[in-house]
Amino acid sequence: MKKKISQTALVLWGATDLGPPHFSADILWRTGFKAPDPFFLVDILLDEDDLVDFGKSYLLIGPLELERAKKELNIGIEAVNANDYKNKSRGYLENFLKWQGVKKIIVPDTFPCGLKDKLAKSFEVALALAPFYPKRAIKTDWEIGEIEKAQRAVEVAVGKAMDYLRSCQIMEDRIIYGRELVEEEIVVTSEMLRKIIDVKLYQQGYLGIDTIVSCGLQAADPHCAGSGPLQAYQPIVMDVFPLSMKTHYYADMTRTIFKGEPSQALKNMYETVRSAQEMGIRLVRAGIDGETIYNATLDYFNVHSYPTEIKKCPMEGFIHGVGHGVGIDIHEPPWVSSIKCILQKGNVVTVEPGLYYHKSYDYPTIIPFGGIRIEDMVLVTKTGCRNLTLFSKDLENMIIS
Amino acid sequence: MKKKISQTALVLWGATDLGPPHFSADILWRTGFKAPDPFFLVDILLDEDDLVDFGKSYLLIGPLELERAKKELNIGIEAVNANDYKNKSRGYLENFLKWQGVKKIIVPDTFPCGLKDKLAKSFEVALALAPFYPKRAIKTDWEIGEIEKAQRAVEVAVGKAMDYLRSCQIMEDRIIYGRELVEEEIVVTSEMLRKIIDVKLYQQGYLGIDTIVSCGLQAADPHCAGSGPLQAYQPIVMDVFPLSMKTHYYADMTRTIFKGEPSQALKNMYETVRSAQEMGIRLVRAGIDGETIYNATLDYFNVHSYPTEIKKCPMEGFIHGVGHGVGIDIHEPPWVSSIKCILQKGNVVTVEPGLYYHKSYDYPTIIPFGGIRIEDMVLVTKTGCRNLTLFSKDLENMIIS
Repeated sequence: MKKKISQTALVLWGATDLGPPHFSADILWRTGFKAPDPFFLVDILLDEDDLVDFGKSYLLIGPLELERAKKELNIGIEAVNANDYKNKSRGYLENFLKWQGVKKIIVPDTFPCGLKDKLAKSFEVALALAPFYPKRAIKTDWEIGEIEKAQRAVEVAVGKAMDYLRSCQIMEDRIIYGRELVEEEIVVTSEMLRKIIDVKLYQQGYLGIDTIVSCGLQAADPHCAGSGPLQAYQPIVMDVFPLSMKTHYYADMTRTIFKGEPSQALKNMYETVRSAQEMGIRLVRAGIDGETIYNATLDYFNVHSYPTEIKKCPMEGFIHGVGHGVGIDIHEPPWVSSIKCILQKGNVVTVEPGLYYHKSYDYPTIIPFGGIRIEDMVLVTKTGCRNLTLFSKDLENMIIS
Repeated sequence: MKKKISQTALVLWGATDLGPPHFSADILWRTGFKAPDPFFLVDILLDEDDLVDFGKSYLLIGPLELERAKKELNIGIEAVNANDYKNKSRGYLENFLKWQGVKKIIVPDTFPCGLKDKLAKSFEVALALAPFYPKRAIKTDWEIGEIEKAQRAVEVAVGKAMDYLRSCQIMEDRIIYGRELVEEEIVVTSEMLRKIIDVKLYQQGYLGIDTIVSCGLQAADPHCAGSGPLQAYQPIVMDVFPLSMKTHYYADMTRTIFKGEPSQALKNMYETVRSAQEMGIRLVRAGIDGETIYNATLDYFNVHSYPTEIKKCPMEGFIHGVGHGVGIDIHEPPWVSSIKCILQKGNVVTVEPGLYYHKSYDYPTIIPFGGIRIEDMVLVTKTGCRNLTLFSKDLENMIIS
């Protein structure tokens, strides 16, 4: 029986290969096909009110990529030669859509405005807010496997960085390469540790982009990648989130480590972040609102005398969300933050509370400066979650003698 | 004297850090500032008909990144706390623009359509075609230096890959690791050579993304990254285009090499591509139309009995443009292709003709199958160009015994 098909189509534009600026995770997710030049993906809807089930899907692409597309496209998507629909009066996308009998198109609200205005002359155009493909947030077993493989690579790389620090010694608060005195001291830096991590990731087939290794006051800015000498006895935040060079799936883990026994105040702050993180993980289950977990975390820190000041500049305390979805994008829905967002079975989200204080703090309690963040990745289940992270976060294992 | 300022502003949206999907090379070029979350750049024009000279420029960014922006922004751009312009009725960008007295905004035609429609309720909106900042195509001495440094890194990496092949032997058309017979033969693959290149790039501070090492029939598809065993006596196309992890400037070079003496037909094809490439470089000068160079190259191949069939599928012959600009984007204006585009002094462009034939060719002359491409990067000068590539392309050096 032939399926009845609506006159409405979803239209996406972008490239699927790694490089900026036109990367579209949505297209990569739907097609499984990678190409460096932008092309169109058209999903003709079975029913115009049902944005999830597609009657027929087409990839419109130039002849240079056509043969490869035919071989590599996911099942159910047909590769169409854009040149077959080219003529002087209109663009090939418009011709193709007309030929398909499409009257209305739905594009993401991030669609290029020039192209959207052009299409609006021939079609009714509706804008869709993200997520464009809501199913992308529910991971398949294969996707979970890819994310777990990436996570294993992260754990190997972070372990290697910690081994390296273990082979170093402390001299006057600095970390010096090697256990023996040598003629010239080599001071260990953020850059050196980042290189160890990124090379180890690369050797396993993963690309570390903007890997964070930041220490002391630098770590009080959660987006600071870190540079220069690492300090002994201070928190060293390592936030590692590589993507698979083969499938483009990410993993994400943060550990805060110390070379040399830190102060009691830092230990207290570490244990508070760890307890908050474990509480967050305990709260995760299908049906909970991310906002609930965020508010519980904020409260937890407040109750434990680590206040948050987001109106100060720079902000201090717990100044970012609890977590985010992970998949083909490093940051993708669902969000575990101050906005409402219900978690579903099959989501993969991070749980990564942190505390950040600058030297200029003026709090009554004794709060050390710096940043501490602990991040695991979990798979949301019906009754709770499964932690995809196998790396220890016990303070005793985080202190390297 | 206070500058008079118009009521028109250029507005850009995007992030400047490496990761997809929101990377904006234009913002990075203007600001020199890298951040992972999207923000706005607003250039208030001195004169609304002059899109090049700015009266005042502002970066609107959240408090998390504000302090770092203040420290790292290029001179002449002021960091503004987005939160200072937030209220319930309108977005902070709209409030900021109103406060500045802006009546009309100009955005790139790739601007997100949802946001553009929203802004169009409060402002006159004009769309600008790329390039948004035409000056970006004219490289400064500093930028040329960054591109040359990246190119040196490429040459070291490609040299290392060739040294590796030199240490290998040929057995029945396959390339085997090592010069001595060992118990287990290790067949050399595209993946192995790519890893050698990418790791060497990384060690020098450069990131190789989608480095091409493709051989034989795979190389007949210019976008195929290559996989599996490399073949002796067949063209191995290495197209290497990393970016600086520090400044984000790219370089781009392609060499086609052979392990073992190729057939006379392949040698002829190589020398034809090389002559066409050298002809292309001789044509480059300020004032010439890229289309002229493209047409001359197409003619050259036709005259030398290497026909082009772009209507066939897959296409065969000379099936892509001659070259492209290189800078913060790997592909950026100006274009040396079948579209009109006048080259200017200070442009950095590639010259990279190639020939691609599949096994199914049906030409009267003896054309071998596979792909051959040779690519240098040149700086356009008033009377010609300066080749930024120092790596040999002599056939005798490309054949590894």
